[in-house]
Amino acid sequence: MEGRKFLSFISILLATFLFFFFIFSRNSNLLPSSTNHHFVNKVAELELQPPRKITPHVHVSDMVHHPLDPLTIPELNRVRSTVTSHALFNAANSHALHSVALEEPPKERVMRWKEGDPLPPRKASVIARVDGVTHVMIVELDSGRVEKVDVGQVSGYPTMTIEDMNTATLTPLKSKEFNQTIVDRGVDLKDLACLPISTGWYGKKEEKKRLVKVQCYSMEKTANFYMRPIEGLTVVVDMDTNQVVEISDNGRDLPIPKAANTDYRFSAQKNQHHKIKPINPISMEQPKGPSFTVEKGHMVKWANWEFHLKADPRAGVIISRVMFQDPDTGELRNVMYKGMASELFVPYMDPSDAWYFKTYMDIGEYGFGSQAMSLDPLNDCPRNAYYIDGVFPAADGRPYVQTNMICVFESYGGDIGWRHSECPITNLKVREARPKVTLVVRIAVSVANYDYIVDWEFQADGLINIKVGLSGILMVKATPYLNTNQVSSEEELYGTLMSENVVGVIHDHYITFYLDMDVDGSDNSFVKLNLQRQQTSPDESPRTSYLKATRTVAKTEKDAQIKLKLYDPSEFHVINPNKKTRIGNPVGYKVVPAGTAASLLDLNDPAQKRGAFTNNQIWVTPYNRSEEWAGGLFVCQSHGEDNLATWSERDRAIENKDIVVWYTLGFHHIPCQEDFPVMPTVSSSFSLKPVNFFERNPILGIPPNFEKDLPVCQSTSSTS
Amino acid sequence: MEGRKFLSFISILLATFLFFFFIFSRNSNLLPSSTNHHFVNKVAELELQPPRKITPHVHVSDMVHHPLDPLTIPELNRVRSTVTSHALFNAANSHALHSVALEEPPKERVMRWKEGDPLPPRKASVIARVDGVTHVMIVELDSGRVEKVDVGQVSGYPTMTIEDMNTATLTPLKSKEFNQTIVDRGVDLKDLACLPISTGWYGKKEEKKRLVKVQCYSMEKTANFYMRPIEGLTVVVDMDTNQVVEISDNGRDLPIPKAANTDYRFSAQKNQHHKIKPINPISMEQPKGPSFTVEKGHMVKWANWEFHLKADPRAGVIISRVMFQDPDTGELRNVMYKGMASELFVPYMDPSDAWYFKTYMDIGEYGFGSQAMSLDPLNDCPRNAYYIDGVFPAADGRPYVQTNMICVFESYGGDIGWRHSECPITNLKVREARPKVTLVVRIAVSVANYDYIVDWEFQADGLINIKVGLSGILMVKATPYLNTNQVSSEEELYGTLMSENVVGVIHDHYITFYLDMDVDGSDNSFVKLNLQRQQTSPDESPRTSYLKATRTVAKTEKDAQIKLKLYDPSEFHVINPNKKTRIGNPVGYKVVPAGTAASLLDLNDPAQKRGAFTNNQIWVTPYNRSEEWAGGLFVCQSHGEDNLATWSERDRAIENKDIVVWYTLGFHHIPCQEDFPVMPTVSSSFSLKPVNFFERNPILGIPPNFEKDLPVCQSTSSTS
Repeated sequence: MEGRKFLSFISILLATFLFFFFIFSRNSNLLPSSTNHHFVNKVAELELQPPRKITPHVHVSDMVHHPLDPLTIPELNRVRSTVTSHALFNAANSHALHSVALEEPPKERVMRWKEGDPLPPRKASVIARVDGVTHVMIVELDSGRVEKVDVGQVSGYPTMTIEDMNTATLTPLKSKEFNQTIVDRGVDLKDLACLPISTGWYGKKEEKKRLVKVQCYSMEKTANFYMRPIEGLTVVVDMDTNQVVEISDNGRDLPIPKAANTDYRFSAQKNQHHKIKPINPISMEQPKGPSFTVEKGHMVKWANWEFHLKADPRAGVIISRVMFQDPDTGELRNVMYKGMASELFVPYMDPSDAWYFKTYMDIGEYGFGSQAMSLDPLNDCPRNAYYIDGVFPAADGRPYVQTNMICVFESYGGDIGWRHSECPITNLKVREARPKVTLVVRIAVSVANYDYIVDWEFQADGLINIKVGLSGILMVKATPYLNTNQVSSEEELYGTLMSENVVGVIHDHYITFYLDMDVDGSDNSFVKLNLQRQQTSPDESPRTSYLKATRTVAKTEKDAQIKLKLYDPSEFHVINPNKKTRIGNPVGYKVVPAGTAASLLDLNDPAQKRGAFTNNQIWVTPYNRSEEWAGGLFVCQSHGEDNLATWSERDRAIENKDIVVWYTLGFHHIPCQEDFPVMPTVSSSFSLKPVNFFERNPILGIPPNFEKDLPVCQSTSSTS
Repeated sequence: MEGRKFLSFISILLATFLFFFFIFSRNSNLLPSSTNHHFVNKVAELELQPPRKITPHVHVSDMVHHPLDPLTIPELNRVRSTVTSHALFNAANSHALHSVALEEPPKERVMRWKEGDPLPPRKASVIARVDGVTHVMIVELDSGRVEKVDVGQVSGYPTMTIEDMNTATLTPLKSKEFNQTIVDRGVDLKDLACLPISTGWYGKKEEKKRLVKVQCYSMEKTANFYMRPIEGLTVVVDMDTNQVVEISDNGRDLPIPKAANTDYRFSAQKNQHHKIKPINPISMEQPKGPSFTVEKGHMVKWANWEFHLKADPRAGVIISRVMFQDPDTGELRNVMYKGMASELFVPYMDPSDAWYFKTYMDIGEYGFGSQAMSLDPLNDCPRNAYYIDGVFPAADGRPYVQTNMICVFESYGGDIGWRHSECPITNLKVREARPKVTLVVRIAVSVANYDYIVDWEFQADGLINIKVGLSGILMVKATPYLNTNQVSSEEELYGTLMSENVVGVIHDHYITFYLDMDVDGSDNSFVKLNLQRQQTSPDESPRTSYLKATRTVAKTEKDAQIKLKLYDPSEFHVINPNKKTRIGNPVGYKVVPAGTAASLLDLNDPAQKRGAFTNNQIWVTPYNRSEEWAGGLFVCQSHGEDNLATWSERDRAIENKDIVVWYTLGFHHIPCQEDFPVMPTVSSSFSLKPVNFFERNPILGIPPNFEKDLPVCQSTSSTS
């Protein structure tokens, strides 16, 4: 080895060591103090792939630069010391912080703010449980003042803490009956894996106790314990007292499905002899580096876009102050004040004892951000991705870092931004095409078995595409059957036999997005552009019909409760009635649905009452600070009396007002064998698209690719 | 310059010279002998970007390797000499070949064929007009035998030839009245650009003459003449006699919209001062080269897929014999015998004189392949794309080469094939993700103003996604208005004011795909898996409802006339009732719709009668060689009495039969200013997805990306 090469080898080694040392020391300091439970003895066998070549961010010295920046480590520590020294907490036997997040300054204050201006006073919104009572407080960070917020008499409990969930999974072990049934089923306690399953609300049983239902699995011989349910065993646990409330044990005769072929990890495939033809490496390369910047941790600038981006324990990511620089005028124009995933409703379609309650609200019950795991560089995100961490509070208020939780990258998969060739008819030699490059903001949320990939994709032409991918592992049910020929035609499986003894239960996913559109300012209107058949009058035309577009401005909320109809189609515009284009069209953005599904559950089903925000695909509400979470602020065991559907029933005025659009993207999922043991990603999306927002095609001036600008590459191995 | 570098510089120079020499000499030899009309004098001003670094294919020595290979140049020449020496042609005053394509051997013969077997006898199917009469003939290439085919008494004329279209645009100039009105409107004849517009069929007027309607534009000061319509002027031309039949001239008072800001070419943007922030080059790089092969010109092999691919003058591309090698067993399994775009229906929504007939059927009237232009390397397709030419016959039967008409490339835009992380609840250190790489087959069809990008995207997990992108230039209407405030509320614009004096007329696009699915063999069934709400019985469950899937096998065609319904959802499976998975599920593929639109026109509207194949989104017919074109074989001026809708009405048996699935992807297009002067691509798609086709997730064994496998790149400029 040459001297210079040796030197660089040594420095890489040193850097790698320092990097891992830093990561692990940080993780052990900052991760929530996790109870050392029975899962831990499996960890050694499993692989942790450390992030590669990602420069870790140091957060202890994070500064606040923007009114919407999330709480920093010093700020979270200040909140913790402030509230724990507060009389309410001092006098208490127990307390836990279920949410500590920035109390965003008033919208008009944020919109007025410019770089260089002093920051508005920093406040934290805190949701705490103190001796079994929920409190909402605003903490002023400078003064230390704590103000209690009256949220009224609403049902429900705050998002579970990770500590709640961890403790709940251990609580059943306190019960002899539970331990006995596990042993009776032939499962070694050391192989036990349990999940905390939100109970929903089905009447008295769930009242006045903060409950969770624990279901368990055997992880013997597989990392994919989800495929090995201990069927019919449900333990109701009180999360405030950590006591077992009830054990329902109805599946003793059901087998635990075998471990064979369930492991999906790369290391487990080595002896599988898949006949898969290899795909050569392919990588999006940017020889001059990415074109976006992330300034001061949160301000993303790319092409003509700029927006504020932050991790949030509940929403996952929050995208704020989305603006587009008009390519004609240079003006920075408002598009959206705030966009985020607001709630996710996942009802399973099995009314039996161990399944009926599985009607998850993953965002409000589990937290989409706190379940968003570190992304795998090169596989979850492409090579040049930039990673952003989440800085979140544990239940005791101590901050921890969710590393590499968000990635931001430019994408080019070969799509075309616009094109035109002249054809032989005209014989003009014109051929113009532009590659379509986009900017993607991604999180991948693992709510136990399921994985949700949420992408906010920004196009250079002003379109925002919001895409949700479903992957991960199905929630399955054990069955005695090895083959469908054993199932009588009368018997209801509630799903598909996916493997021997394994039924994939039918379920839906509904993810509702909060979209506070501010098209060139806050006062907007929602317009339906309905296409309807017009019959021509006799002798008017050889045609007897054509489609005519009719504009209707929604006056109140009920005008904007939209169910999509293929045979009664509309476009849905958010326009600024106070601003017109040069030729007189109101400037606007439209919501463009794509493939979706609608909830078909009985409106009076307790599950659908709580998930009533899925009763329409689109809703529009007037902006209201307290209406951000479609399923309500407190979702665990909520009765459904305070959610988007009930707000909208007030039928408030929404014309020429600051309005919020809610869009629900739905999926029906009838499982199939391809979903076993881990499912290929299924995606759907919707878009926010400029419609007479620009005077003309805003990407007219984008140059085509030229060979001279593209990289020269070789394979890494050939350079070694 | 060093000696070696100089040498390579010289050889590159030489290669470049030879390449261009080859291209241009080829083009001038092989392009249809285009009439030297008035467009030509504009050519010098416009830019032709020659393909870069693409090795041209030599076709004069093309060999036939597969029963489905398209006709080669020698074969086309043989067809030409055979038919022109036939008595029918000998005795005729005029003749033109409207279609010369491979008469594919019987399906069972093709399916039996294996590499190395002798090829079935080669035949050509010829559609010719001889002295004003349409003939369909089968020409046996070896024997020279010509067999006339009786296609019955159906209305309509064959696809226009490019010569038809070129001649038609010149014919109006024969008319003094026409020339006068052009001059009266202030247009110099040298700036005239005219388009041949299919007439549709609206009764007697169109009967017994092969007509086209010519509309004209001013190309003064712009390459984008489409934005400068000479409104209200329609010239009916007889394409058999090349005579003007009628001139309708109703727009004398309407202005011709200005040329300013209409040019979309890169060269025209230089003085536009777009405030567009530059995007650094980004390129999909494959240091070890692409992973696909195209063997013997047509057999594509990638990942576990293989299929036959060819250019077709009418369909654009035809994908045949689509098979997937099962990763568990290694078996090569049938998925689809043949897939192609079958018809495209584009009704405009303006019943007035110069617009009502604009109800294009682009595939049957113009030819999707003959209008598919050379793709622009680096911009229409990414860097490592492989290009395939079309070898097509001109009207006189001479073959010409449509260079670089199809591209094939691997795509990776950062998507995730599957993933799972364990979350804090389980505390297992598992994080597995796989990048999603796909193979794309693309054409871009320019039917005059509009551009259709048709992608067949193959995923490694067995899914085929068929995506249609719309770009290009809108068909617009001149209007007196400069601003919407001049338009009275009673007046119907039939569209959107997009620029001064320019209305973008509302229109739909319906593209119907022919999908001859052969899931593990030809005998398949079509199954609806309908999801319906079940109410639980009292005391059955705390839930009052759940969704239950009910399977219904379609017995006859009418059972499979499907209108999609958001609130009555189904999955649509093509299963093989004779083959089950290990655990007893029938193997299948499902048709997965995404965003789409349905035709709302009056079923008795002459336009909708011809486009009746759009009356449902899905149809299933029994395989029938003569039922390939959804709008019928002869589409120009067809009455609509012989198309998919009428075939399906026969209600033939389709259970456990060789069946064909037809899917129609629809778009409503209400124009907006962003579509001016060229529209950003709007896409939608549908998928064919394995459903219990595999025993389990077929991409389990795909390895993740590792840094060591990715390329090392630098920017080209930094290497110079």
